[in-house]
Amino acid sequence: MIEQLQSPQELRRLIELMPPANEDALDAARARQAILTKPAGSLGRLEEIAEWLAAWQDGGSPRAERIQIIVFAANHGIAARGVSAYPSEVTVQMVANFNAGGAAINQLSDWLGASLTVIPLSLDAPTVDVTQNAAMDEETNLFAWRAGITALDEDADLVCLGEMGIGNTTIAAALSAALFGGSGADWVGRGTGVDDAGLLRKTEAIDEALARHRKHLKDPLEALRCIGGREFSAIAGAVLAARHGRVPVMLDGFACSAAAATLHAANPDALAHCLVAHNSVEPGHARLLEKLGQKPLIDFSMRLGEGSGAALAAALVRAAAATHNGMATFESAGVSGPPD
Amino acid sequence: MIEQLQSPQELRRLIELMPPANEDALDAARARQAILTKPAGSLGRLEEIAEWLAAWQDGGSPRAERIQIIVFAANHGIAARGVSAYPSEVTVQMVANFNAGGAAINQLSDWLGASLTVIPLSLDAPTVDVTQNAAMDEETNLFAWRAGITALDEDADLVCLGEMGIGNTTIAAALSAALFGGSGADWVGRGTGVDDAGLLRKTEAIDEALARHRKHLKDPLEALRCIGGREFSAIAGAVLAARHGRVPVMLDGFACSAAAATLHAANPDALAHCLVAHNSVEPGHARLLEKLGQKPLIDFSMRLGEGSGAALAAALVRAAAATHNGMATFESAGVSGPPD
Repeated sequence: MIEQLQSPQELRRLIELMPPANEDALDAARARQAILTKPAGSLGRLEEIAEWLAAWQDGGSPRAERIQIIVFAANHGIAARGVSAYPSEVTVQMVANFNAGGAAINQLSDWLGASLTVIPLSLDAPTVDVTQNAAMDEETNLFAWRAGITALDEDADLVCLGEMGIGNTTIAAALSAALFGGSGADWVGRGTGVDDAGLLRKTEAIDEALARHRKHLKDPLEALRCIGGREFSAIAGAVLAARHGRVPVMLDGFACSAAAATLHAANPDALAHCLVAHNSVEPGHARLLEKLGQKPLIDFSMRLGEGSGAALAAALVRAAAATHNGMATFESAGVSGPPD
Repeated sequence: MIEQLQSPQELRRLIELMPPANEDALDAARARQAILTKPAGSLGRLEEIAEWLAAWQDGGSPRAERIQIIVFAANHGIAARGVSAYPSEVTVQMVANFNAGGAAINQLSDWLGASLTVIPLSLDAPTVDVTQNAAMDEETNLFAWRAGITALDEDADLVCLGEMGIGNTTIAAALSAALFGGSGADWVGRGTGVDDAGLLRKTEAIDEALARHRKHLKDPLEALRCIGGREFSAIAGAVLAARHGRVPVMLDGFACSAAAATLHAANPDALAHCLVAHNSVEPGHARLLEKLGQKPLIDFSMRLGEGSGAALAAALVRAAAATHNGMATFESAGVSGPPD
């Protein structure tokens, strides 16, 4: 039924009523960790990840075999303001590159043994320049949420979310400021690599957008509609569908985290089934992660998007499940147990 | 000929005369990075890793397909001083667990698709308690170096080094202090999980060892012989053989880094072909990494050893090679290039 999402009211209800963690599976995972042949806690974050998987799947041992990567692509009216080092046509060119197997995410998807779903969202119709008007009307916005909801493979053990869209670090910064306060200067960064003049244009555009929509920013969902973009709504939709479908989520970088942050702002528990993959170079990301209470898994100075960081981190999730499920116990291996 | 290592003099010559980076392969890798379909530098550390692989392999594109994991196991006389939460018999029990496929490193090796070589080093004959006398005589020491040298698969694209040995974080701390200064308190940690009394025993044992051997600690190789242990000499041997055989090395945690640090102390260029996989919980590790100028790839609060962190990081090295080799160029993909 979530796929049939027809109204903002229905959307709000789905965000309010999110299913809780599977406490039985979590307890079982913790109990198993304690008897595996290693000093207690010595696998650190791998143990936490295995427990997190168990908590947000539908029961049984934590699994990370079947991994889906979804990349949502969209274009932004604000790109015409010179906020990116690359022209808007690069979005459609990169989607062609994804489909031809030539992008970073294709190599990482193959390396991971994941499925890759690329969803271009009306690339020939950029959203409205958010300094001028709302990015999306209600219908366009709901369409994008549904695109995210329906893109999810509910049989996946883990879904990695990513995006591609020239101009979207400007949108990510504006949306973050709308959700958590601050001005353009607090959230802006160089994205794909703008020079100082471009950075100034970005900062000013963000401040203009915030001023333009200031009456609508108290409501996180309205903030997303007014100064977001299609890939942001789609990512939020995929995160929402994953929660209801019991698929744990790996979020990529700044744009992806900003999209998901909309749900967090609407319901502080909304991202409990999500991890953030990596700490992006984009300076707004660290600030956003603090607001979300998330500690990224990797810090590789990446700033590509495409779900590239999420794919890297997903491999580590699979390692967490592999150690959790495959290791011998002290008893079965005849290893002298931990001290009392 | 390195396999035939007969004398300390020969060993010193091999450490002094280390082959340099392959500058041509490094230049070629850098040139390729610049034309791949991504903003320059946007894959961050993945790009650095691909270049590092190219520099320390024997030419051509960077490769990380064939990965060998070597775990060296040994016992330590100092364990009788109550410096570990586990009894010494756990070393032989864990080797049996490795051979039966039940340990964390077995699951990680399978997950990675690596080969796993487990080398038990005279487990029934622990090294001498280093608070009393030199850990190893010349012959025992050279035997361990050779064990490390000969364990290496020279056809590997990358080798991950790890260890197992009850009591060996005490040895790692003592060796680190011997190489870089400081006292027991500066380098000690809880290892597999000693209580406060155990921690005090560890600290005192380290200080006693440092005092006992103080006349021999100016020479890094003598420091290793006097207050090291077989797995430490073996790891140093494997690092040395890998350099001469052009196999890049992934070092695991504290014990592994301390062993390799011996080479660094003898020749500051000695670890240029090595990366450190992760930042161990063991507090001496961060201090040691600073001395080595190494920034670990992962920070997962792990403290297991066995090469577990190295295996995790090796997957990321493979991802670096996959993106480097597989991505399309701006020209081939018809993507508008980077700004001038």
